Amino acid sequence: MEDKTTLPAVLVNSYMSSLISVSASVGIEASFVKPEMTSGVKAQGSRTAAFIGIVGGAAQCTVALMADMPSFEAFVSAFTGGMIKADSEDPMSMSVLGEMTNMISGQALIKANMPGLDITPPQLFSGKNLKLSPSVKSNVKSFTLPFDIGVGRLYLVLSVYN
Amino acid sequence: MEDKTTLPAVLVNSYMSSLISVSASVGIEASFVKPEMTSGVKAQGSRTAAFIGIVGGAAQCTVALMADMPSFEAFVSAFTGGMIKADSEDPMSMSVLGEMTNMISGQALIKANMPGLDITPPQLFSGKNLKLSPSVKSNVKSFTLPFDIGVGRLYLVLSVYN
Repeated sequence: MEDKTTLPAVLVNSYMSSLISVSASVGIEASFVKPEMTSGVKAQGSRTAAFIGIVGGAAQCTVALMADMPSFEAFVSAFTGGMIKADSEDPMSMSVLGEMTNMISGQALIKANMPGLDITPPQLFSGKNLKLSPSVKSNVKSFTLPFDIGVGRLYLVLSVYN
Repeated sequence: MEDKTTLPAVLVNSYMSSLISVSASVGIEASFVKPEMTSGVKAQGSRTAAFIGIVGGAAQCTVALMADMPSFEAFVSAFTGGMIKADSEDPMSMSVLGEMTNMISGQALIKANMPGLDITPPQLFSGKNLKLSPSVKSNVKSFTLPFDIGVGRLYLVLSVYN
């Protein structure tokens, strides 16, 4: 079990590598854009988001996977073998983003060696100019991890209660 | 502890009355629009959303509180005594929605008599034409509770893993 000071760093690292490996498993090369990683929330241009909560003894956090339109299209096509057309109005196509978030979280929590955590089902949001607002509370730390997948951007926003 | 068949009904009822009582505590009369309550997700016209996860022995659920612009404005003004102008780009003003969701969830989980549940910090979304996609999984049940606050609409979307 990690103590509270190292928890964000452990989660950031395990989520980063899990996103890259889940993407690779469907043939998409995602590269972490380290210079643009920020504390706080910065995921401009996003059209779709999948959101899950993680709660357990050591942690209370939320994870949002946010995609712009080109990267949403690329992942829907890759996950479904081109069988489903990306459409943010279509629950089937949105569910790809939820499934990805589940897979990434599953791997990340194993890598982070944090057993005993429960995760919620993903909630799927879409909208024009979709924005996540950072928390104004001093005990919530947020981190935005940007990934470049060639055609577009994918952001992973982690918020951890301290 | 509730069994899995009654869990959604218990949560729907306790969230409904908690939303009404938290709104009343800041001087806003919210009435539940029973004829428009639906299973599934239906929260058209929303501009802002606060999202939390609830996890514990008996439950894995997510709650999204979604507001259209007029109701977002009404709540920001009521919660801050008119000190803050409603602006979906302003984290301070968005945090009102998060705080409301915290308060409603706190009351609802006490009413539902479900101790031992942990909730995540709220994530705050905004966007034009903000939409929540229903889950396509058969083991996730969603319910949309619509509320009329006179100037606008507020929706509470509950998703429960069965």
